[in-house]
Amino acid sequence: MKKLINDPRAAVREMLEGLADVSPHLALLADENVILRGDLPEPADRKVAVISGGGSGHEPAHAGYVGEGMLTAAVAGDVFTSPSVDAVLAAILASAGPAGALLIIKNYTGDRLNFSLAAELARKEGIPTETMIVADDVALRDIVARDRRRGIAGTVLVHKIAGAAAEKGLPLADVARLARSAASEVATMGIGLGACTVPTAGKPSFELGENEIEFGLGIHGEKGVRRSHIQSADKIVDQIVDTLLTDMGPFGTRSVALFVNGLGATPPMELSIVARQALSVLRARGCRVAKAWVGNFMTALEMPGCSLSLLPLDEERISLLDAPSRAAAWPGPGDIAERRNNVMSAHPAADATPETSAPGPVSTQLKTVVDAVADALEQAESHLTELDSLAGDGDLGASMERGAQALRALPSSAFSTPETLFVAMANTLRRTIAGSSGPFYATALVRAARRLSGISMPDTAQWGAAFADAVHSVSEIGGAKPGDRTMFDALSAALDGWRQAQEAGETGERSWQHAAASAREAAKATANMKPRLGRASYLGDRAVGTPDGGAVAVAIWMEAIAEVLRASAIQRASA
Amino acid sequence: MKKLINDPRAAVREMLEGLADVSPHLALLADENVILRGDLPEPADRKVAVISGGGSGHEPAHAGYVGEGMLTAAVAGDVFTSPSVDAVLAAILASAGPAGALLIIKNYTGDRLNFSLAAELARKEGIPTETMIVADDVALRDIVARDRRRGIAGTVLVHKIAGAAAEKGLPLADVARLARSAASEVATMGIGLGACTVPTAGKPSFELGENEIEFGLGIHGEKGVRRSHIQSADKIVDQIVDTLLTDMGPFGTRSVALFVNGLGATPPMELSIVARQALSVLRARGCRVAKAWVGNFMTALEMPGCSLSLLPLDEERISLLDAPSRAAAWPGPGDIAERRNNVMSAHPAADATPETSAPGPVSTQLKTVVDAVADALEQAESHLTELDSLAGDGDLGASMERGAQALRALPSSAFSTPETLFVAMANTLRRTIAGSSGPFYATALVRAARRLSGISMPDTAQWGAAFADAVHSVSEIGGAKPGDRTMFDALSAALDGWRQAQEAGETGERSWQHAAASAREAAKATANMKPRLGRASYLGDRAVGTPDGGAVAVAIWMEAIAEVLRASAIQRASA
Repeated sequence: MKKLINDPRAAVREMLEGLADVSPHLALLADENVILRGDLPEPADRKVAVISGGGSGHEPAHAGYVGEGMLTAAVAGDVFTSPSVDAVLAAILASAGPAGALLIIKNYTGDRLNFSLAAELARKEGIPTETMIVADDVALRDIVARDRRRGIAGTVLVHKIAGAAAEKGLPLADVARLARSAASEVATMGIGLGACTVPTAGKPSFELGENEIEFGLGIHGEKGVRRSHIQSADKIVDQIVDTLLTDMGPFGTRSVALFVNGLGATPPMELSIVARQALSVLRARGCRVAKAWVGNFMTALEMPGCSLSLLPLDEERISLLDAPSRAAAWPGPGDIAERRNNVMSAHPAADATPETSAPGPVSTQLKTVVDAVADALEQAESHLTELDSLAGDGDLGASMERGAQALRALPSSAFSTPETLFVAMANTLRRTIAGSSGPFYATALVRAARRLSGISMPDTAQWGAAFADAVHSVSEIGGAKPGDRTMFDALSAALDGWRQAQEAGETGERSWQHAAASAREAAKATANMKPRLGRASYLGDRAVGTPDGGAVAVAIWMEAIAEVLRASAIQRASA
Repeated sequence: MKKLINDPRAAVREMLEGLADVSPHLALLADENVILRGDLPEPADRKVAVISGGGSGHEPAHAGYVGEGMLTAAVAGDVFTSPSVDAVLAAILASAGPAGALLIIKNYTGDRLNFSLAAELARKEGIPTETMIVADDVALRDIVARDRRRGIAGTVLVHKIAGAAAEKGLPLADVARLARSAASEVATMGIGLGACTVPTAGKPSFELGENEIEFGLGIHGEKGVRRSHIQSADKIVDQIVDTLLTDMGPFGTRSVALFVNGLGATPPMELSIVARQALSVLRARGCRVAKAWVGNFMTALEMPGCSLSLLPLDEERISLLDAPSRAAAWPGPGDIAERRNNVMSAHPAADATPETSAPGPVSTQLKTVVDAVADALEQAESHLTELDSLAGDGDLGASMERGAQALRALPSSAFSTPETLFVAMANTLRRTIAGSSGPFYATALVRAARRLSGISMPDTAQWGAAFADAVHSVSEIGGAKPGDRTMFDALSAALDGWRQAQEAGETGERSWQHAAASAREAAKATANMKPRLGRASYLGDRAVGTPDGGAVAVAIWMEAIAEVLRASAIQRASA
C-alpha cells in the first residue's frame, strides 16, 4: 500500500488537523474527531445546528461542508467506520443551543445507532434534537425496501438544503421537514471501475478483472449489485439515468438538479464526459435540468468511478440550494444554461491572402529566391536525413522537403511584397513542417514580416533589421543560446557576419554572402557541441562528431539566397 | 484500460463540451478546443486578455481557471500534447482586443513554440501580445539551468496574479511584469506514488515497484529525477520543503503562500496530512505562512502524488491573490490563521452522576431489579453465545455478560431515581456492549429516563409510558419492524402484552408478567423468521430454526424483572 500518510491509525486525526490548519472558519474539537464552525455565536443565539458525519474516507464529505449556510459540525469516524456516540454527542453539545440540532444520517446501521443514541443523550441534556435518514441508493431498488437503501452522494444536497434552511432562521421542525422532503426525493446510483484501499487494511477492498466494472455500489469500497464489462461512458450513463428515472417516477413539470459525483480517482476529464451525456440523455427524455454540479463531493478514498444523483426542484428548494455558503467544498448554485454557449472562431486576416494582385517586379525577384531555396532544400534531403538520423529523430530531411514543396505551391499573390510573402510562407511552413522547425521558421518569418510591414521594396538596412528580428525570435521562443547545438548557432553567426560586413561598408549582396559563409562555418562547428536543448539533449556525447542538421539546413538555404543575389548582381552589373 | 470515456480521440472535445454545458459563464469555440469567458464585452472594451493552456490531462487546469478575474481563455491540446498554433491563435483572436493579450506558457518546447508563434501571428493581426514562461520545477535544479526547468503547478498562482491584474484594468506591460515577477519566485516540487494512463496510449506511463515512489516529477506522467522507497508523509514533506527553501534562498521578512496540489488520484485525506506537515515544518523553519491552498489544481490525469509550491508574498501579490474571481476551480483567497482553532468539548452533565446522595428506599428496590437482570444475563451467557453462533457473529453472550458486569459496577448514587439509573445504565452499556445491542439498549434507556424525568416513584401508567417510549425508540433508530427477526420482535410483543393486561385491569406487577411471557413467546417465534436487517440478513434461510439471540436476551431480562416484582408483591402481601 502506498499512501501519503504516517501511522494509519492516526490518519483521520491528522487529516482533520491539516484541514483545520488551512480553514480559519473551522474549529477542531481537542478530544473528539469533530470539525465545527469556528464562528458560532453564544449557544443562546445559535440557529438550528445541522450536523452530519459518518466514517471517514468520503472527503471532502463531511468536514468540507461545514461552514455558514451548510453544516454546523461534522463528526469523523475511522475510515468507513461509524463515529462513536461520544463523538456525535460532543458535536451536538459543542455546536447546538436551545434552537436545537438536526442530525443528517446516511442509512448505515452503525451511523443510525450511534447518531440516534447521541441524539437521545442530547435531548436528555435539554437540546432539542431531530434525526433524519438519507437512503438514496436506487441500485438497491430490487433488493431491499425503499427505507433500507444506503445513503450515498445525494446526502450532500440534503446537507445544503438543511443548512440553508437553518441559516434562514427556520425552527428545527421546518429545517427537518425540508431536509426529509429532499431526502425522500433524491435518487443516486454509482458505478466503480476498481476498488480502494483502507489505510489500516493495506490492501484493495476487492478484485476486479481488467475489463470489468461494478454497477450500483456504495461509498465504502464495496462491490456493486452487478458486474459488467467495461462500456463506453455514454452507455454507462444511459443505464444509470434510466434506472434513476424509473425509480423516481414522474415528477411533473418540475425541473431537476443533476449531481455528478466522482468517487475519488476519476479525473475531471471523465466526469465532464459523464456530465455531458447525462445532460444530453436527460434532455432527450424531456427533463428540464436547471442545475448541475460536477466534482468529487462524496468519495470512497481513491476509488475510480462516479455516481449520478437527481433531485426534483421547486421554488423553495432552488432558493435553498442558491443560498450562499462558506463551506469550502460546496460548489455554488450550479445554475446551468439551456444550451451550450458555442461561439465561432474569428479567423485571422493573414490567412486570406488576396489572390487578385498581379505579379510585379518585386514579385518576380522574390519568386526566384524562394524557388532557389526550395531547390537547395530538396537537393539536401538525403544529407539532412542522414545528419538527423545520427543525432536526432531523423525527420529533418523529409520535413525540409515538404517545406520546399509547400513553398513552390505558394500562390503568385503571395509574392506581392516581402511582408505578404513572409506571412504566406509562415502559414504554409507551420502547417507542413513537423517538429519544432515549423514554429521556429514561421515565427521568424512573421517577425520579419512585421518589421517590413508596408514596405514593398526594403533597403539594405531594412532587410538587415528584419533579419535581426527574425534571428532573435528563434532564441526568444526556444530559449537557445549560442553553443547549444541548434539552428540558432548558424543563425546567430550569420547575423554577426552580416553586421560585420555592413560595418565594413559592404553592399547588401556581399553582406549576405558573408552571412551565409558564417552560417556554414557555425554549422560545421556544431559537430563539436553536445546538445543541451530538446530531445537531442538526451543523446549527450553520442551526437558529437556530427554537425546539427538544423544548423546545416540554415546554411543551405542561406547559401542558396546568396547565390541568387550574386547572380542577380552580376546580371545588374552586366546590364 | 478502464476509463469513463467514449472514443479516446474525442475525449478532450467531449470533456470541453461537458464543461461548457455546466458552466454558463463559459463559451466553447466551435472549431477549436478553446474555452473562453462567455461574458466578454466588445473587443474595444476588453481588458488585457490572460490566456493559458497546454496539453489536456491537467484538469481542472486550464479551463477551470477561465472566468472573470483569472484566465480569459484556455487552449486545450490533446492529453499531454501541446495545442496547435491555430488553436492558440483562435483563443487570442476570440478573447483579446486592442488592450492586448498575455500568454502564460508552461516551459515545454511544444508549448513555447506554438504559443510563441501564435503570439507572433496575433501581433501581425494588430493585437499586442506578450508571452511569458513559467519554469517553477526545482526538482531539476541540479540538472538544468534555472530557465530550462519545467513549468508545473506554480503556474496556477501566476494565472491568478495575472488575471487579477488584468481585471484591475492594468495595461499589458504591467500585467506581464507582475506575472513574470511571480513566475520568477514561485518554486514547486512534486512526488509520485504511481503512473497514469493516457487514453490514446491505453497503458500506464511507467512501472513502479510496490514500495517505490518517484521524487521530482512533472505533470505528464513521467518519472521523477530519483526513485526512493515509500516513506512517511511527514518525511517526504520535509524533503520537499527543504529542497524548495534551499532553492528559493532567503526571502527576507516576507510571508509565503503554500500551494498543496494533488496530481489526481490522491485522496483529500492524504493532501490534508501533507498540508499539516508542510505548515508545521515551514513554521518551524521560521516562515510566516499567510496563505495556503489544498486540492487538485494541476493534475496528471489519475496519477497518485502531489506537489508543494511556495510563493513569497508582498502587499501587491496578496491583494491580487485576494481579488475575487469567477473561475470555477480557483479556491479563493486561501487565508489561514496563525494557529489551529482547537476547542474543548462540552461534556454532558449526565456523565457526572453525583456520588454523594445516600441510598433511599427507591434505590434499594431498583438495585434488586438490576442485580437480578445481571444474574440472569450472566447465567444465559453460554446459551446466548450458542444461539448467536448459529445465526449471527457469536459475540452476543459475551456482550451481555460484559453488560451485566457493568451493571453490577454502577455506583450506589446511580440508583437514586429511575431517571438517574436509566441514564447511568445507558452510559455504561453503550461503552461496554459491542455491536448494535449497546446503542439500542442505551437509546431505549435514555428515552425511558426522559419520560420519567423528575419522577422519583413512577406510578404504573408512568412506567408503562416509559416502557412504550423505550420500545418505540428501538424501532425508530434501527428501522426494525415486527417479523424482521430482531430484538424488536420480543420488545413489541412485550409491549402488546403489557397493554392488554393493563386494559384488562391488571396490576403493574401482573402486567409485567404478561409482558415477559409475551416476549418469551415472540422470541421463540423468531426461529421461523428469515433475518432481514443487519449482518444476519446475509445468512438468509441458514438462520431459520434457531431463535434470534437478541430477542431471547430480551425475554431473559424481562423474566428476571418479572420474578423480582412477583417476589416483592408476595412480600408486600405477606407483610
